[in-house]
Amino acid sequence: MSLDDASQKPHDRLARVLADDMERVNALIRARMASEHAPRIPEVTAHLVEAGGKRLRPMLTLAAARMCGYSGENHVKLAATVEFIHTATLLHDDVVDESAQRRGRPTANLLWDNKSSVLVGDYLFARSFQLMVETDSLRVMDILADASATIAEGEVLQLTAAQNLATDENVYLQVIRGKTAALFAAACEVGGVTAGVEEEKIAALRAYGDALGISFQIVDDLLDYDGDSSTTGKNVGDDFRERKLTMPVIKAVAKADAEERAFWVRVIEKGRQEDGDLEQALALLARHETLEETRQEALRWAEEAKQALALFPESDLREMLLDLADYVVARVR
Amino acid sequence: MSLDDASQKPHDRLARVLADDMERVNALIRARMASEHAPRIPEVTAHLVEAGGKRLRPMLTLAAARMCGYSGENHVKLAATVEFIHTATLLHDDVVDESAQRRGRPTANLLWDNKSSVLVGDYLFARSFQLMVETDSLRVMDILADASATIAEGEVLQLTAAQNLATDENVYLQVIRGKTAALFAAACEVGGVTAGVEEEKIAALRAYGDALGISFQIVDDLLDYDGDSSTTGKNVGDDFRERKLTMPVIKAVAKADAEERAFWVRVIEKGRQEDGDLEQALALLARHETLEETRQEALRWAEEAKQALALFPESDLREMLLDLADYVVARVR
Repeated sequence: MSLDDASQKPHDRLARVLADDMERVNALIRARMASEHAPRIPEVTAHLVEAGGKRLRPMLTLAAARMCGYSGENHVKLAATVEFIHTATLLHDDVVDESAQRRGRPTANLLWDNKSSVLVGDYLFARSFQLMVETDSLRVMDILADASATIAEGEVLQLTAAQNLATDENVYLQVIRGKTAALFAAACEVGGVTAGVEEEKIAALRAYGDALGISFQIVDDLLDYDGDSSTTGKNVGDDFRERKLTMPVIKAVAKADAEERAFWVRVIEKGRQEDGDLEQALALLARHETLEETRQEALRWAEEAKQALALFPESDLREMLLDLADYVVARVR
Repeated sequence: MSLDDASQKPHDRLARVLADDMERVNALIRARMASEHAPRIPEVTAHLVEAGGKRLRPMLTLAAARMCGYSGENHVKLAATVEFIHTATLLHDDVVDESAQRRGRPTANLLWDNKSSVLVGDYLFARSFQLMVETDSLRVMDILADASATIAEGEVLQLTAAQNLATDENVYLQVIRGKTAALFAAACEVGGVTAGVEEEKIAALRAYGDALGISFQIVDDLLDYDGDSSTTGKNVGDDFRERKLTMPVIKAVAKADAEERAFWVRVIEKGRQEDGDLEQALALLARHETLEETRQEALRWAEEAKQALALFPESDLREMLLDLADYVVARVR
C-alpha cells in the first residue's frame, strides 16, 4: 500500500484541511525553482515536482503551525524551505546511490547527468536558505541550518557504515536520524517556533517529528526487502545491491551462524554478489524473523511519536498527526 | 608565477597585516569542519585545507571590514563562512569536472570517491549557513544566500554552455560572474555591511569584488591554455578536453574561417578529439591573438576593480587591495 492510493488516509485528510496553505506552498516552490539564466534548472526540478511527491515534510510544518494556532504567513515560506532542502537531498542521493528510479520515474541523474543533479541540488539548497532568511527569524534559520548539517553528516556516516558488517543498530539509528528524522523533526519544530508557542510544545513537536521520521525510514528500509515496486516506486533489493546495512540485515547478521556470516561477508563486505543471492538473503531474513522484528521497531517508534503529542489539547489537526504516525507504519502493518 | 611564491606580493602583505584575524579564521574553520559522527568528513576537508589554499576570499572579507574601521568579531565568522562556501563548491566542481588535480594534489573525488565529495560538500554548505546565522545579521545572510544561489546557477549555466559553439562572450561573462565573481563580491560586501558603513561604500566594495573576481577567472581561463602546471597546479588543456568554452576559444571561434570552424565543431561540439588537437587549438588561438586579447580584458577588469575603491580614503589596506587587483593579472602580465 502506498501513501497515495486511498481517499481517507490521514495524509489525504491533512492535505484537504491544509489545501489553501499547500496551494500557496506549491506556488512558492514553482516561483522559486525558476532560474532566469539557466533553463536546465527548472527542467530538472519540474521533473521531480511533477512526479508528485507526497509533500509530507512541508505538510508537517503547516500542520504544526496551524495546530499551534498560527495565523501569519511564515509557515508557507518555511514549508517551501523544508521541501527545497528535501528535494536537494533527493537529487544528491540519487547521484550517491546511482539510482535509476525515484517516485516510479527515471531519476534526474539518468535523464540528464550526475553533474546536473549535483549542481541543481546545490541551487535548491541555496534557494532554501534564501527562503528561510525571508522569515526574519534567526531561530528557525538556526534549526534548519542545523538540520541541513545533520542530514549531510548522516549521509556521510551511511557511506562509511555501508559495506561494513560491524555496523550495528546504534550506528544505523544515527544514520537514519541524520538522513531522514532530522528534517522531519525540524519541519515540525519550526512550525511551533513560528507560532511562538511555549518551549515545552516546541520540544514535543520536535520529538514527534524525530520519532515519525525514524519510523518512516525503518519502514522504507523494510519495504526495500518486503515491498512491491509497483506501489513503492522503489526497486526491491536496491539496498542489498548497494551493500547498505539496514535494520533487517543488521539483525540477521547479529544472529548469523558461521556459514551465514560467510555469506554476508561475501555479498556485503566483499560485494561479490551472484544470481540468487538476493533470494538467499531474503531466506535468511525470514529464518531469523528480522523483517517482523524490524516491523515491531517501526511500530514502537510510531507509538513514541504519538505520545509526544499528548500535551497538545485535542483538535482535528492533532488527531490527523496521530493518525499519520499510524499510517506511516500501516504500509507494513 | 603563482600567487604563493614571492614575499612582497600584495597577497602576502595582506596576509601579514591580517595575520591575527586570519589565525582566528583558520582556528574556526578547523573547529567547524570536524564531525563527531562521521570521520570521513574531517579526512576529506583536511586534505583540502592542508593543500594550502590562498584563502583569498576570506582575506577579502577581513580586509574590507578592517578598511571600514570594523573592530568587532563578526568578520572572522563571515570570513570562515565564505571559505566554507568556496571549499564546498571546489568539492562539487571536482565531481562535475571529473578533475584529477587541485592545488597541485590529487582531488578528493579521486582519493575517496564522488559520493564523499558530494556529501562532504553538502556538509560544508550547511556549516557555512550555521556560521552565518551566528552573526545575527539578516542582511549578511541574505547576501551570502544569494551568492550561493548565483554560484550554483552559474555552474549549471556553464554545463549547458559547454560543448555549444553558440556560447558567446555575454554568456561567458554570466557564467564567470556566477561561478567566481559572486563569491568575491559577497565576500567584500559583507565586510562593509558588518562594519556598518554607508551604502555607497558597501556598493563600492561589491563592485570591487565583482570586477576582481571576473578578472581572476579570466586569468584562470587564460592560464588553462597558457600556463605552467608546475606553478598553477592545474593541468594545461583541461578546459579544452572538457569542451568548456572560455574566452580564448570563444574569441577564436568568432574569428574562425570555415575550416577552423569545422575544427571547433569537431573538438568542442562533437567531442571527437584526437592527438595533436590541443596543439592545433593553441595554434588557432595564436593566429587570432586571442590569448593577448583575453589578457587585455583581464587587465581592463582589474582597472575597474581599482576604480571602485576610489571613494575610500587612502590607507594601507586600500593600497593592498589596489595592488591585489594588479597582482591577480600580474600572473599573465
